[in-house]
Amino acid sequence: MPTVAILGASGYSGQETLDRILRHPELEIAALGSDSLAGQTAAALDVRLNGSLPHFVPNEDALAVGADVVFLCLGNERAAAVEPPAGAVVVDLSGAHRLVDPELARAWYAVAPGAWSYGLPELYAPEGNLIANPGCYATAALLALAPLAGAVDPATVVVDAKSGVSGAGRELKASSHAGFVLENVSPYAVGAHRHAPEIAQQLGFAVCFVPHLLPVRRGLLATCYVHTDADVRTLLEDAYADSHVVRVLPEGTTPELARVQGTDAAEIGVFADSATGTTIVVCALDNLGKGAAGQAVQNANLALGLDETAGLRLTGILV
Amino acid sequence: MPTVAILGASGYSGQETLDRILRHPELEIAALGSDSLAGQTAAALDVRLNGSLPHFVPNEDALAVGADVVFLCLGNERAAAVEPPAGAVVVDLSGAHRLVDPELARAWYAVAPGAWSYGLPELYAPEGNLIANPGCYATAALLALAPLAGAVDPATVVVDAKSGVSGAGRELKASSHAGFVLENVSPYAVGAHRHAPEIAQQLGFAVCFVPHLLPVRRGLLATCYVHTDADVRTLLEDAYADSHVVRVLPEGTTPELARVQGTDAAEIGVFADSATGTTIVVCALDNLGKGAAGQAVQNANLALGLDETAGLRLTGILV
Amino acid sequence: MPTVAILGASGYSGQETLDRILRHPELEIAALGSDSLAGQTAAALDVRLNGSLPHFVPNEDALAVGADVVFLCLGNERAAAVEPPAGAVVVDLSGAHRLVDPELARAWYAVAPGAWSYGLPELYAPEGNLIANPGCYATAALLALAPLAGAVDPATVVVDAKSGVSGAGRELKASSHAGFVLENVSPYAVGAHRHAPEIAQQLGFAVCFVPHLLPVRRGLLATCYVHTDADVRTLLEDAYADSHVVRVLPEGTTPELARVQGTDAAEIGVFADSATGTTIVVCALDNLGKGAAGQAVQNANLALGLDETAGLRLTGILV
Amino acid sequence: MPTVAILGASGYSGQETLDRILRHPELEIAALGSDSLAGQTAAALDVRLNGSLPHFVPNEDALAVGADVVFLCLGNERAAAVEPPAGAVVVDLSGAHRLVDPELARAWYAVAPGAWSYGLPELYAPEGNLIANPGCYATAALLALAPLAGAVDPATVVVDAKSGVSGAGRELKASSHAGFVLENVSPYAVGAHRHAPEIAQQLGFAVCFVPHLLPVRRGLLATCYVHTDADVRTLLEDAYADSHVVRVLPEGTTPELARVQGTDAAEIGVFADSATGTTIVVCALDNLGKGAAGQAVQNANLALGLDETAGLRLTGILV
Repeated sequence: MPTVAILGASGYSGQETLDRILRHPELEIAALGSDSLAGQTAAALDVRLNGSLPHFVPNEDALAVGADVVFLCLGNERAAAVEPPAGAVVVDLSGAHRLVDPELARAWYAVAPGAWSYGLPELYAPEGNLIANPGCYATAALLALAPLAGAVDPATVVVDAKSGVSGAGRELKASSHAGFVLENVSPYAVGAHRHAPEIAQQLGFAVCFVPHLLPVRRGLLATCYVHTDADVRTLLEDAYADSHVVRVLPEGTTPELARVQGTDAAEIGVFADSATGTTIVVCALDNLGKGAAGQAVQNANLALGLDETAGLRLTGILV
Repeated sequence: MPTVAILGASGYSGQETLDRILRHPELEIAALGSDSLAGQTAAALDVRLNGSLPHFVPNEDALAVGADVVFLCLGNERAAAVEPPAGAVVVDLSGAHRLVDPELARAWYAVAPGAWSYGLPELYAPEGNLIANPGCYATAALLALAPLAGAVDPATVVVDAKSGVSGAGRELKASSHAGFVLENVSPYAVGAHRHAPEIAQQLGFAVCFVPHLLPVRRGLLATCYVHTDADVRTLLEDAYADSHVVRVLPEGTTPELARVQGTDAAEIGVFADSATGTTIVVCALDNLGKGAAGQAVQNANLALGLDETAGLRLTGILV
Repeated sequence: MPTVAILGASGYSGQETLDRILRHPELEIAALGSDSLAGQTAAALDVRLNGSLPHFVPNEDALAVGADVVFLCLGNERAAAVEPPAGAVVVDLSGAHRLVDPELARAWYAVAPGAWSYGLPELYAPEGNLIANPGCYATAALLALAPLAGAVDPATVVVDAKSGVSGAGRELKASSHAGFVLENVSPYAVGAHRHAPEIAQQLGFAVCFVPHLLPVRRGLLATCYVHTDADVRTLLEDAYADSHVVRVLPEGTTPELARVQGTDAAEIGVFADSATGTTIVVCALDNLGKGAAGQAVQNANLALGLDETAGLRLTGILV
Repeated sequence: MPTVAILGASGYSGQETLDRILRHPELEIAALGSDSLAGQTAAALDVRLNGSLPHFVPNEDALAVGADVVFLCLGNERAAAVEPPAGAVVVDLSGAHRLVDPELARAWYAVAPGAWSYGLPELYAPEGNLIANPGCYATAALLALAPLAGAVDPATVVVDAKSGVSGAGRELKASSHAGFVLENVSPYAVGAHRHAPEIAQQLGFAVCFVPHLLPVRRGLLATCYVHTDADVRTLLEDAYADSHVVRVLPEGTTPELARVQGTDAAEIGVFADSATGTTIVVCALDNLGKGAAGQAVQNANLALGLDETAGLRLTGILV
């Protein structure tokens, strides 16, 4: 059975990736990397993790075990510095390898782009062994917009996105303090978020992207505004007709954060504003699921030739 | 001292209006109308209200006491059916008298428009004794957009708004059930919200308006996207230079729901998205404050010739 | 394969029971009862439920299909009125059949007790085909206290419990309105909650039980205070040594709502207050999981001779 | 007009104290101390603070301006190190000077107690110029229990307290991260919280005190369980008959966090559990109001001979 090493296993996206691998029928954990928890048992991350899992080791050591699949759940700088082991499938959940234009990669992430493939399976199948996993906001925006890209007026596309606090990671920062987050909502990084060039790269044109922080733990909703003459519903339904992950909702049904939380699925709703001729496409997903760990495992599955959705959280109708 | 009757005093906007009148140095309560609490003491609404206030009476009786100012904190239909008493200043917090076009008024509210004046003091001073108080979403959108109305491309304006649950009132409905609201966010009434024609009426053109429900008790944030060559910041700063209610934030400061909650103030932030040439104007206010009761009292003050901000909640820096 | 009918499938506990049956390898849905959704497809409850499920039918019709297992996810009165079909396993998630003392049953639920067995598998194995599923608060209190019952001073036991809003069901009521629940917490039904006599019946003595409503969607935490000379940790560890559902946490680890939400597991922590000689036992569970649907399916599994935890949600380490 | 220096003005309790002084008709700000914001304008704390306030200065400098009143809104260690200026009224909002027993003071705060007076005005009037402001949990527990202290069985008193996240301050820590706080509740510091010896010192006997963290921004509820033969309601009503700050609610009315948030008031409810003969006294207050800044200003007012409630937030009936 192919083996897995997770680097940065104690962060949010690392923990979620571990969750998916523990559910996975054809992958097994070889190493859990975490510089902060190195030496401790897996139970240090979650009391439910028992003795069958290896102890945490430094990320460097986790990389060195020679696992068949390596998930990089690290910050951008740390991920950029990792030397991919020959032969392994490496999925980078950070932003370090998403931008292919050297100038943009340097400007936004201070890295030189390498031979990484952008893997958003429903739209851009990963190629080769080195896979850049998309950003959570970019995933939602692209799922909503990529099938329409040739048919919209690029000059007027707006993506107003709202995300739960886990999108900012487990790191301590003032904007993640519950005293700031609760009973609050605010836009941030307006005109200056790293997912904007990522969306532009994939669509072929820039869109106006503004993220907002919500007082919820997890989940992300992108409300996208476009002007187009195309039959948007048909374009989207065709694009995701075969997907077990992305669902275009029937007319009149509204995407909800609550329905995708804790899952690796995405929901898309299509609406018309007749007064202005605007089409509104709303995509909901879990920033840690389809927006991170779920998609990373989906990408790894494809690279390994396994069932695309093995290990993913796609079922259930919890209240 | 002029006297006040509040009809619908036990709903959210009625309770907030009562709060402002209790703070008001030059107005006093003559009658508290509530069909559901009729006969009970004011303490039935809030245990802190003591014996000096009159008992609740049926709304009809509250109207009949002949108060100098009447606040209609009723549903649209109930408000439309009220016969304004001669000579009194009447502020209608419902939507019944906002639309002046007979066809629109009929279509959206099933009423015939009368001689009511739309009162949003910073933009449209109320005239006469019958004042239609603006909707909460409309207030935020208009504060952000009205000063730019002549300078933007009307075809591409987007207003993406987010509101706390109190915007939907104290009435019991599935979409206000905490089991639905908590850890959730969703758009609603897309392309079909009554505040859209209200915004269009005041701006002179339609905008694409999409409201979202947030898991917060109170507060509203409108993120507005426009294309313009104008100096938006200057237009806005000029518009509100003399206001004690609306504040244009300095560059780099972001509006926050938390800072306006429980107040009658509004905050406006201006941002540029250089990649697409879009200007983003964000307005935050409390849907029950500047979006309802605060503005209603502001309008009444103007109609009575009192200090515009008497009774309003405009101070304090609570965490 | 044994068949299942769910009566009241559109309420919270019904929806969660359906979720577990859909995961269950050895049970299949025969009928979905709901008087409010009768005639509609399963998708009316959740858009993810597809055509392979039967349409909703009136509860009466769901009962009449002759399923092998019937889950009563109804209000107390409705459940009390159901005539159990001969031969079927019937699990009543309401309170109607929990109290065995005729006087208490009449006083608290206005019913006459029948031949129902109280099924809390780790403590009281269900017997026969008619199973009364415990209340959510009672489950938490009993898991914490039953193993100590003989060793504590019964006169001074306190159970201070806190629950998410889903514990009050999907029904619309003022205390479930998000405008009341958000940024709030309050005790309710102090000295008058129906789970108090249920706890007393099982323990053999009354405890002081006070529930509080939390601004969370799901999850329940019971903080129990006892005076005892016994080795509480050992008593609890022994009681649950073989359980896959109830976990006694290692010393120093605190139960958390977040870790049990969306699961059918329970967590117990043991603490000492040396200043007063009090022992504190804290139990966390999901009111809709181990506190309702998870336990109901666990009871049904035992009655049918299936694997006790089949269909349950017991894995995963979601953030 | 007496002048005020606030040390630690940029923390939560400092900001709230500033809020109250800005409302105060007879006190004015002389210095705002903050080591982290030193050199910046007051607007760096809150954009609404304008140029009439002094710039932030290092705490040491704020102390040196010779203000008539000094509020210490610092951490325990920092507060313990401050040399009180002769003649000034000094109110210490930290815990450094609350414990008078030298051994306890050393054990819990690593300080030697000085000549500080414990000031909880309704129960223990401050004496002299050096005032130790009570802890938030201690305030709630003492308001509920002190009037009964002579009449209860001390061996069985339980205080189960629940607090919003602002009680832990603005400092960044894992337990204040919104990803931990949202949709969660958990006990902490069980049997080991510093407010326990403080409560014991004032009551004359130890109680079992367990705090819990709630997913709310502000507010604190203490549910206290006692065994007594006394008429608890009468004892409490007598104790607070003259208070404008503490309100004993009428029978059947339940304290609510929402009603005291943002205020300096406290609410007390009394309940009986007839099954066990337990009396439950519930106190709700705002941890930053009556639990910190409001009480600090109340104490300062008394020390200065001003109106006890000047500057306090005691009015309003916000939804």
